[in-house]
Amino acid sequence: MAVIVQKFGGTSVADPDKIKAVAERVMKVAKAGNDMVVVLSAMSGETNKFVALAHAMQEHPDPREFDMLLSSGEQVTISLFAMAVKAAGMDAISLLGDQVKIITDDSHTRARILAIDTDEIEKHHASGKIVVVAGFQGVTSEKNITTLGRGGSDTTAVALAAALKADACEIFTDVDGVYTTDPNMCKKARKIDKISYDEMLELASLGAKVLDIRSVSFAKRYKVPIHVRSTFTDTEGTWVVEEDELMESLPVSGVTYNKNEARITISKVPDTPGTASKIFTPISDADIVVDVIIQNTREGGLTDMTFTVPLTDYESAMEIVKKVCADIGAERFIGDPDIAKISIVGVGMRNHSAIASTMFQVLANEGINISLISTSEIKVSCVIAEKYTELAVRSLHDAFELDKTTPLEERS
Amino acid sequence: MAVIVQKFGGTSVADPDKIKAVAERVMKVAKAGNDMVVVLSAMSGETNKFVALAHAMQEHPDPREFDMLLSSGEQVTISLFAMAVKAAGMDAISLLGDQVKIITDDSHTRARILAIDTDEIEKHHASGKIVVVAGFQGVTSEKNITTLGRGGSDTTAVALAAALKADACEIFTDVDGVYTTDPNMCKKARKIDKISYDEMLELASLGAKVLDIRSVSFAKRYKVPIHVRSTFTDTEGTWVVEEDELMESLPVSGVTYNKNEARITISKVPDTPGTASKIFTPISDADIVVDVIIQNTREGGLTDMTFTVPLTDYESAMEIVKKVCADIGAERFIGDPDIAKISIVGVGMRNHSAIASTMFQVLANEGINISLISTSEIKVSCVIAEKYTELAVRSLHDAFELDKTTPLEERS
Repeated sequence: MAVIVQKFGGTSVADPDKIKAVAERVMKVAKAGNDMVVVLSAMSGETNKFVALAHAMQEHPDPREFDMLLSSGEQVTISLFAMAVKAAGMDAISLLGDQVKIITDDSHTRARILAIDTDEIEKHHASGKIVVVAGFQGVTSEKNITTLGRGGSDTTAVALAAALKADACEIFTDVDGVYTTDPNMCKKARKIDKISYDEMLELASLGAKVLDIRSVSFAKRYKVPIHVRSTFTDTEGTWVVEEDELMESLPVSGVTYNKNEARITISKVPDTPGTASKIFTPISDADIVVDVIIQNTREGGLTDMTFTVPLTDYESAMEIVKKVCADIGAERFIGDPDIAKISIVGVGMRNHSAIASTMFQVLANEGINISLISTSEIKVSCVIAEKYTELAVRSLHDAFELDKTTPLEERS
Repeated sequence: MAVIVQKFGGTSVADPDKIKAVAERVMKVAKAGNDMVVVLSAMSGETNKFVALAHAMQEHPDPREFDMLLSSGEQVTISLFAMAVKAAGMDAISLLGDQVKIITDDSHTRARILAIDTDEIEKHHASGKIVVVAGFQGVTSEKNITTLGRGGSDTTAVALAAALKADACEIFTDVDGVYTTDPNMCKKARKIDKISYDEMLELASLGAKVLDIRSVSFAKRYKVPIHVRSTFTDTEGTWVVEEDELMESLPVSGVTYNKNEARITISKVPDTPGTASKIFTPISDADIVVDVIIQNTREGGLTDMTFTVPLTDYESAMEIVKKVCADIGAERFIGDPDIAKISIVGVGMRNHSAIASTMFQVLANEGINISLISTSEIKVSCVIAEKYTELAVRSLHDAFELDKTTPLEERS
């Protein structure tokens, strides 16, 4: 008898009919002889409604009270779901984070899971029940309700799967898997059958639409196989698995892009110890997350510092940089909000040389200038002018033949 | 420093502005140096929404899951309320039934409170917080969420007041107190300033609109003074207190009526042991609650049996009676759904003779025939034709001079 965790997002449980359809789906797997844990989000729209209510009460809602409010949404869906199962003649029980004992730290609105007690779930499995767990929520050791932040229900599902040593963790969503690139950008995009945890992490901007990134880290650590698939079809989606399970035949798994960043360059910075800190400390103090940082040394003890920030923080970052430039005696600074970061990702890169240079060549062939490059072991990112995004994505997708074979089909 | 429990119903917390207004009201009392416990219901409309959702899932919603669903409504209002207090610069914390430790039995949807732990509330009072408690809900010793049934938030408030030995339990509602009779029926109706628990219990049909009857029994047992008053004005409402606190100067406190019953009479029943049981056992087996039962002995070992049942159960009760009559050899039975039960209530009756006969005389003077009489220590009820309800209420209200003085003003 296998233990299977299935997580359904807000659009999958948006109304009674959808909840019933999801219940049917779960019961089919249960009837095949599996112990089921179902993790649900709040009905789509509910969380936004609660956020609006909270902001009507308090400009910056108290985090503990905000969690108390938000967590009520999942309570609604799990109870309705259990009723649907019972109405169809099977047994089910809904459990809150507190009832399962999903213990978290006390970082309200973005709590981290510290421990999960599996006794309660296993007890109900032993008596043949489908266990329906509220996603997104936990409880501190002081019995305060916490929430896990954006995408928290994915984390709940993966954490439960890890704690229960589940055979699979299936994340149901409104898309049918992870694609080689954004299908809206490139119609040749293909669904990936199998991908490694690391690739999934690097494919953030593609992956985030279907699977919360924190839950991938969690799954990697505990070796939980995740199956990302559509609520509305029966076709297989994308499996996110350990790298060992993949045959590394193709170097690139996917092409991803991010248009929501801006670039800032500070020129002719005196290259003395502590300069970088003088630039980035005030930026981080302003809660601005810097992505890529590149430093090029010039002649004459001067250096150029380039970095990217989220587009929404661009104006405030420029303000800070203006002050810092005067402080450190930098010659000038320029900003560009009209950029895009294009990345190719693949664990196969490790064993294939020249992947990065192929990428540069492909972009050059299209007349696309690269203003910033950063690389990791399994990813190469280039910052280009935003207007070339689509062209870059399509040419890279073609060049690495992502349209011709699903790379990971061959691997498996 | 006094401990004050204040309960606000669903219409008082129906939207963010109303919640803020209520928070202001509570803070004013807190600033006067009182330790506050605020008990809230769900926003009005929410419970009905949940009931509809539950019935969309399951014809008879599973009671445990139903409670899981319903209890989420209070979670929303308490967190929003705590935010409102914090936004206004005072400190507050919201607590669920489980967090307070309001322990109930496991009779889901109509659970009874077994124990309340006051430690958590007292801890937060010690640190100067307004404690905001979810009404209507508790938790079993097995950690299942329960609800207390209709009017449950009133019970929560009274039970907390009893456990905390609070100085007052104020029930805020959309009317400004308990009236000598229904103001819609008799425009001379006056607000009562003080009334005893027993009178409040007997005035059920008047009282139920403002205060759940179970909470009155609870308050009586633990001697909790209840103040029923309006959310929307500052005027004093009605205090429900121990009889000792009242000066019994006037015999009648209020006139109440009930049009939602029907009368059934079984004639010429053989007057043998076990006959009453043969009639009422099948009726109670059908979950029909019989109110008044009157038995008149006739000559010749025969008796007449008359009783009233809720109007909604009238048809099924008549079906049962038809079978029973054949069984026990009764001559015939007749039913009348067009009746009203008019009652006068007052603890002063104990010391005033002739109250009942005055009532009969008043009705006779108006040409109203009485078809059934039942009396208790502090109440006299007469069943009359439904069309005379208004006339009966007004003439009794006049006859006992309920319009001229608020009887209990004199008592206090």
